[in-house]
Amino acid sequence: MTDFTPRDPNYVKRVKDSFLRQPLMRTFGADVGAVRPGFAEILLPYNENLTQQHGFIHAGAVSAIVDNAGGYAAFSLFEPGDGVLTVEFKINLIAPAEGELLIARANVIRPGKTLTVTNGDVIAVKDGKETVCALMQQTIMRVVGRPDVVE
Amino acid sequence: MTDFTPRDPNYVKRVKDSFLRQPLMRTFGADVGAVRPGFAEILLPYNENLTQQHGFIHAGAVSAIVDNAGGYAAFSLFEPGDGVLTVEFKINLIAPAEGELLIARANVIRPGKTLTVTNGDVIAVKDGKETVCALMQQTIMRVVGRPDVVE
Amino acid sequence: MTDFTPRDPNYVKRVKDSFLRQPLMRTFGADVGAVRPGFAEILLPYNENLTQQHGFIHAGAVSAIVDNAGGYAAFSLFEPGDGVLTVEFKINLIAPAEGELLIARANVIRPGKTLTVTNGDVIAVKDGKETVCALMQQTIMRVVGRPDVVE
Amino acid sequence: MTDFTPRDPNYVKRVKDSFLRQPLMRTFGADVGAVRPGFAEILLPYNENLTQQHGFIHAGAVSAIVDNAGGYAAFSLFEPGDGVLTVEFKINLIAPAEGELLIARANVIRPGKTLTVTNGDVIAVKDGKETVCALMQQTIMRVVGRPDVVE
Repeated sequence: MTDFTPRDPNYVKRVKDSFLRQPLMRTFGADVGAVRPGFAEILLPYNENLTQQHGFIHAGAVSAIVDNAGGYAAFSLFEPGDGVLTVEFKINLIAPAEGELLIARANVIRPGKTLTVTNGDVIAVKDGKETVCALMQQTIMRVVGRPDVVE
Repeated sequence: MTDFTPRDPNYVKRVKDSFLRQPLMRTFGADVGAVRPGFAEILLPYNENLTQQHGFIHAGAVSAIVDNAGGYAAFSLFEPGDGVLTVEFKINLIAPAEGELLIARANVIRPGKTLTVTNGDVIAVKDGKETVCALMQQTIMRVVGRPDVVE
Repeated sequence: MTDFTPRDPNYVKRVKDSFLRQPLMRTFGADVGAVRPGFAEILLPYNENLTQQHGFIHAGAVSAIVDNAGGYAAFSLFEPGDGVLTVEFKINLIAPAEGELLIARANVIRPGKTLTVTNGDVIAVKDGKETVCALMQQTIMRVVGRPDVVE
Repeated sequence: MTDFTPRDPNYVKRVKDSFLRQPLMRTFGADVGAVRPGFAEILLPYNENLTQQHGFIHAGAVSAIVDNAGGYAAFSLFEPGDGVLTVEFKINLIAPAEGELLIARANVIRPGKTLTVTNGDVIAVKDGKETVCALMQQTIMRVVGRPDVVE
């Protein structure tokens, strides 16, 4: 991973404040984990309301948290007052999202004035054992002067 | 759109039964719309619990319904007893998901014995006016002998 | 397909002039086909130098022409003096690229001030019969004041 | 990176033999670099015939070599007699492909009986300095009993 220097020393608080304003993440019962410059984690404890037919977490919820992790990885490098928008992402679902906890993690690969590219994955923790269950690659847009437009 | 002949005359019922067994879709308040051979719609009425900070539906929920629409478009062409799995999808978010209703629609482009390729979009209906808010391309796997593995 | 009004009445000439300045397309023996506002075609006659082991056109060449078609579909709606850059694309290879001619076609789905989203496909023509061999979805960036940066 | 144990001790020779049978790679002047279990590199020295208008290597050629690197990363883990097919890939072009050499590198993230997921990048080497110019994520299919179907 590359080392990044954040322009905003309060980037962790800025990420967490933004996260708290997202009703979907509250509905999911998700939380922010580690945040570093160009890196963010979203934690999702098992929640029966988010499953598909077999009791695994639905791919839609898996996608939502890793998209969000990528958005916040990018957001951590932005300036106060900047908003963040997902332009697009691509996800491979490579194992069932089964277990007591999902951890979505994303890294900025290329920070840009307008576009930032990230990649990330989702780890399923079952009985303490970790399995990669999804792999993601994403393009994020910085929206100057419109803070907190994360979707 | 290509015309497809379903192998299972009860494909509509099979899609709807499968959908009802997905707790995430219930949490969302989503429903199945039109289903035709190689085509499926998921309807998502506005739900404040699924929004991001600005009152639009969160990209994560948009992704979840169009992924699901693609899965069911493929599933409509399968045989009874087959399961369906999302291998991967890619989504561009092209306008805010704003309005009273989202409609995710997906079509099978290439049905296959093992892999099926679909594409789709999501329409946001606001005051009756329709805007395309997302565009998706997806790979689906048929899982023989394990019905209803949709994630 | 949506109807678009080009800002530059000379968009066809602009596309063709740009295409002629791309050595890779010359190496491939590719040519521009139909160009309309928000739409472009690239034609690639069979060329043994572009094959893989089995005499089909290599996925790399298939990707190159459909990426290019998308770039020119977007470029057709730009103003003179604007350049065009592929931000990213995703391609599904759905049938062997076999035959006497490949036709890559792309449409603008959402034109934007900065980002344009396209999708497209590649048709393989064999003994006059057409098969879709690839499906693509793409994000294009307009680069103001740097004409002809197509890659 | 995960450590993989190849099923075929002659995997390096098998990769190189397959590569030599691809006319497109010969047309490009590309070569195989390092090959390890679940990893492959493709080297592309600067070649004016592969450029776009500005003398950078065309995105189509960049895509072709990283797609190929991913295919061979997967192929290295296959058994003799297996063929390999790109199901789909997604690529972000993040910097101009400028310099004396491009190095495409790919790793298997999830090996599978049928589907293998890889990711990779392309490094542009200019005056000895390395820049990541592309990032890729890919799905590969193993084709049993049809050796060497790489496209």
